[in-house]
Amino acid sequence: MKNVHVGLGDRSYSIRIDSGIRNRSQEFLPWIAGSQVFVVSNEFVAPLYLAEVRAALGGKEVTEVIIQDGEHVKSLETATMMFSRMLEIPLDRQATVIALGGGVVGDIAGFAAACYQRGIALIQVPTTLLSQVDSSVGGKTGVNHPLGKNMIGSFHQPRRVIVDTETLGTLDTRQFSAGMAEVIKYGVINDPDFFEWLEHNIDAVMELDQSAVEYTIEQSCRNKASIVEQDERESGVRALLNLGHTFGHAIETATDYRSWLHGEAVALGMLMAATLSCVQGWITELELGRIQTLLERAGLPTQPSRDFSSDTLKENMLRDKKVQQGRIRLILCRGIGRAVVSDDYSMSALDRTLREFANG
Amino acid sequence: MKNVHVGLGDRSYSIRIDSGIRNRSQEFLPWIAGSQVFVVSNEFVAPLYLAEVRAALGGKEVTEVIIQDGEHVKSLETATMMFSRMLEIPLDRQATVIALGGGVVGDIAGFAAACYQRGIALIQVPTTLLSQVDSSVGGKTGVNHPLGKNMIGSFHQPRRVIVDTETLGTLDTRQFSAGMAEVIKYGVINDPDFFEWLEHNIDAVMELDQSAVEYTIEQSCRNKASIVEQDERESGVRALLNLGHTFGHAIETATDYRSWLHGEAVALGMLMAATLSCVQGWITELELGRIQTLLERAGLPTQPSRDFSSDTLKENMLRDKKVQQGRIRLILCRGIGRAVVSDDYSMSALDRTLREFANG
Repeated sequence: MKNVHVGLGDRSYSIRIDSGIRNRSQEFLPWIAGSQVFVVSNEFVAPLYLAEVRAALGGKEVTEVIIQDGEHVKSLETATMMFSRMLEIPLDRQATVIALGGGVVGDIAGFAAACYQRGIALIQVPTTLLSQVDSSVGGKTGVNHPLGKNMIGSFHQPRRVIVDTETLGTLDTRQFSAGMAEVIKYGVINDPDFFEWLEHNIDAVMELDQSAVEYTIEQSCRNKASIVEQDERESGVRALLNLGHTFGHAIETATDYRSWLHGEAVALGMLMAATLSCVQGWITELELGRIQTLLERAGLPTQPSRDFSSDTLKENMLRDKKVQQGRIRLILCRGIGRAVVSDDYSMSALDRTLREFANG
Repeated sequence: MKNVHVGLGDRSYSIRIDSGIRNRSQEFLPWIAGSQVFVVSNEFVAPLYLAEVRAALGGKEVTEVIIQDGEHVKSLETATMMFSRMLEIPLDRQATVIALGGGVVGDIAGFAAACYQRGIALIQVPTTLLSQVDSSVGGKTGVNHPLGKNMIGSFHQPRRVIVDTETLGTLDTRQFSAGMAEVIKYGVINDPDFFEWLEHNIDAVMELDQSAVEYTIEQSCRNKASIVEQDERESGVRALLNLGHTFGHAIETATDYRSWLHGEAVALGMLMAATLSCVQGWITELELGRIQTLLERAGLPTQPSRDFSSDTLKENMLRDKKVQQGRIRLILCRGIGRAVVSDDYSMSALDRTLREFANG
């Protein structure tokens, strides 16, 4: 069992990490104030784990909402459906929402909890590696809009995050790899020791060695918690967590959020950021090579793709949230473990990088 | 010029109250960080005041959205339309939303600001008495749902509230009276001196005497600010501000939000709360009479109505946000200036009160 504290004053909470923790009432019940619980899960996760979580909630009035799997359900329409369900019951203000699933479930259930009656309690039970190391921690919730990903949302911290490493056993390899992109990201941003540990232990992690996986999640959550504690609402240092994301969102938009998983797009995006940093002379070829190798060993894409053109990527990047008055602010590297926010790079270096990874 | 400070740490802001203040650039520009401003107003207010506010925003890129007048536009659909407009521009994260209008405009523009890219800056420019003394202060934003009023929303504090008392000159008498319900409410909740001041000055206020109106708004905002400072998210004392609102919402629901203005429903609701308090023996007949008289002099309803039955009211009250585990918690009085949250009243006294004011 690992415990990571997220210190945010009266919004502080614990991330609990263990194998089989989804079955333990004592991890849930003390954090649920009212009598009503609204569990949101998806069609893939619910048959596997919902009955057990429900059993751990013994004595509570539980309502279940099962949504489809996939990014397309992360919409205002789905949120509206949830609000209707919540009001039909009706949930009172002491009710708790539990998000049981991956990033999509966490984001939309979190958004529903954030806005229902101006905010009710939320417990995250992330079941994918990506949501365990990233999206369930830090309070970002939201939905997509046809004109952009995560454009509508709210900051709403959970009361507790319950990470059951056993659920990774039913996650397919590609999804696991996608989560590893965010794990490797923490090393590149701010934690060179963790990056080095990953270089030595990536095979054990990929084989789901329990102790290696637990350490990976713990260390990732510690990194994220530390940044969120400094800057809950992303007015400063939290932007570093977007390493690879501006490039990544451009890839996802270009491919209509279908063929590339978020983590895969972030992985290639991180490599683009590292490449641009290298072209600028901010990191060495050796460091760039170490990042590329670690991504490859985690089963992530690192090669140029024919799925998009460099022009499309650039156009999409200009629509990103991180654009300030026409300049694309990027997260770049000044070394492994030393990410920086910068718009102080040459446009020709950016263009060259985009062309290197895109189809012309 | 009056200034009321709302002290909420890094979310603190000032309420500025003066005649003609809508024309003053220096009241707006220092509080707008980015270059983009998104002004939301309605079809009634925009022709009167939007050009002047726009002139005061000289140098900013201003986008205007004019919505219809009326409670029915306070919906997720309208919010969705606003998100689309914001993304078409697209607004960046440094953009500021300005809400120019009454409570509906403030609530929905505030909700759009709260959720767009997880929160951008908001300036409230309330133009009705009700929004000037109540809804523009304290950060409540939201929309209605077919199953309940204000059920979807967010807490999102403005950067500044700019109250132009001149706009009250174009407000019809009935709307002005509706705002007075919230004013009188502050006296009944917590401010017996202000209640007494109102008893002596209500005629001057109703005649829009500048100094009396300014003092009325200032004192109301001070009362609200003080409660919001103690309990921003309504987990305790802020609930007192709902005096008259549980009854009032039941009236509004029973009449489909059409024939009764919010403030009118709150006024009769407050009188119902006072009557129930009197039936319980918590306030004297004399105090009840003083409340009734002041409401009457402000042009507010105080008589039994044929618009709803007591059964309908009770049913609606049971659906209210303030219901905890089946018990209706009400704001009642233990004296003028001494409101309390209580579920410790007899159900027969509640039934008797409802029958006294309803149609059987």
